[in-house]
Amino acid sequence: MIFLAEDKFYSQVYSIKEQINFTEKFSLEARNFKAIVISGMGGSGVSGRIFAEIFQELPVIVVDSYKLPKYVDRSYCFIAVSYSGNTEETLSTVKEAKARGVRVNAITSGGELSKICDNLIKIPAGLQPREAIGYLLMPLLNTFAGIQTEERKKIISILENLEKERSPIWQLAQKIVDSRKIPYILSWEPFTSLSYRFKTQFNENSKLFALNHNLSEQNHNELVPQLMNGGMAEKFIFLVLEGDYSSRCKVRLDIMENKFSSEIIRIKPKGETQLEKLFYLLHYIDILTVEVSLRLSFDPEDVKVLENLKAELSKIK
Amino acid sequence: MIFLAEDKFYSQVYSIKEQINFTEKFSLEARNFKAIVISGMGGSGVSGRIFAEIFQELPVIVVDSYKLPKYVDRSYCFIAVSYSGNTEETLSTVKEAKARGVRVNAITSGGELSKICDNLIKIPAGLQPREAIGYLLMPLLNTFAGIQTEERKKIISILENLEKERSPIWQLAQKIVDSRKIPYILSWEPFTSLSYRFKTQFNENSKLFALNHNLSEQNHNELVPQLMNGGMAEKFIFLVLEGDYSSRCKVRLDIMENKFSSEIIRIKPKGETQLEKLFYLLHYIDILTVEVSLRLSFDPEDVKVLENLKAELSKIK
Repeated sequence: MIFLAEDKFYSQVYSIKEQINFTEKFSLEARNFKAIVISGMGGSGVSGRIFAEIFQELPVIVVDSYKLPKYVDRSYCFIAVSYSGNTEETLSTVKEAKARGVRVNAITSGGELSKICDNLIKIPAGLQPREAIGYLLMPLLNTFAGIQTEERKKIISILENLEKERSPIWQLAQKIVDSRKIPYILSWEPFTSLSYRFKTQFNENSKLFALNHNLSEQNHNELVPQLMNGGMAEKFIFLVLEGDYSSRCKVRLDIMENKFSSEIIRIKPKGETQLEKLFYLLHYIDILTVEVSLRLSFDPEDVKVLENLKAELSKIK
Repeated sequence: MIFLAEDKFYSQVYSIKEQINFTEKFSLEARNFKAIVISGMGGSGVSGRIFAEIFQELPVIVVDSYKLPKYVDRSYCFIAVSYSGNTEETLSTVKEAKARGVRVNAITSGGELSKICDNLIKIPAGLQPREAIGYLLMPLLNTFAGIQTEERKKIISILENLEKERSPIWQLAQKIVDSRKIPYILSWEPFTSLSYRFKTQFNENSKLFALNHNLSEQNHNELVPQLMNGGMAEKFIFLVLEGDYSSRCKVRLDIMENKFSSEIIRIKPKGETQLEKLFYLLHYIDILTVEVSLRLSFDPEDVKVLENLKAELSKIK
């Protein structure tokens, strides 16, 4: 049973290398818009969050609710991202957009979204949304960041090397399982979106509760309950995705390490460019959370709780 | 000791009514800008998050880090919010803004920010940043939302009524303390920013760990660890700030309630307009988290952990 799950899920996690070669793009120019608004939830929406952190020429606003902000009109670039094409929150924002005469660009494998959008990038079906992160993210990068063949090759080669040297990830997975602590992920720019991805991959792949926060804002609020009142900090295993900006965050981390009773594990990305490091970490996170799942004897694919919720929601109109 | 803390903190929590009458504003017109960028951390930055949810004519981007997004130039309205005026992340973004020739509007009680900004709204000193939420938020509302005297009076009257009928809040505070569970705050629009405020007020006033998420996005990720793997949901006491959009969120909540072993407590705001409801909830949250603190025999004012961190940071340049 577990062996089957491993087989299937592994092949999907590892298909990221194939996904990076997905070259479809929209005919859109960022400079023609005031901002880019990406509507998407969960495993689909996270592609928008990652893109928002990479792309810095215009504000990228990620909508993760039923409601499209009032300011969104034809002067904004609107992109709906839903792997299934049937996410009800995303469809609700799409209907609002259409009512305002806003052109709907969509990234989806099918569903209602593929029928009602004005401009479609169709991606391969049959995956869990979170396994399709490459297919969901690449069209955004292809359209606005102009990623080249050489860059794709470089990224794929970095991921292949990571796969060859997986044993530190296996050890960390075992350490997380043995700790019986709650994973608490910290990061700073340009990887705050990946700390959210990390948390959600623990949630769905590993069935573990997990937390994430960006380091500096976290200091302003959570140090108090973590270090006073009996030291909540010891309940967590801290995992840090080391960002490039700013060196002050590393100073903060050093100070925290001295105060915390719990270990702080730093994960350093390999690669040179932001994109290379980003995909390295993305793949690292996927492998790690699946490894944790297998060590806990859970099926990383199993999210029937969610499927039940969707079924119950669909009964109530 | 506790009695003194109660006396002092209570008078500050209750000074929100005075703060609502703060009428200072900037001479800025939203329509002259592509978007509004507000830089601020912790108890100061939360004013930007709340404003971003109220103001819907332009995107409002809240920066909670050392780094100003690359796109920010003179076509954006930049506002730095730091109660002390010495928050190092905020000052870092201010320096980047100045280097790009961007005009720096500041809301602060003093510090370095008051000296280097181009345009200052000075607010009363001597409070904790989180106690000054009215002073931090009103200049944003005064400038861009044109709040009138009648509205201010109405809000203050709603808060006075809330104070007269505090006993349900006292009961809820006792219930939270007795539960020995972790507060988990859920909300949806237009109160997702208040769910973050609620969490941070538990953190700093009550010295309690707490979590928050917007309801719908939460469903997409966290139902799995909350309902599988032994049911993490039972470790939480769920507090819900009921938003106006969308009714589907209430359907989601009903379904969750049937599945969760833990109670879901719904907090309904009083008032008619969004602003009235928002200030009702803001005051409710403050009173509740201070009441929890006092029942746990903590001093709600005490954040020496944070002050120590700042002192250590200042030693390392």
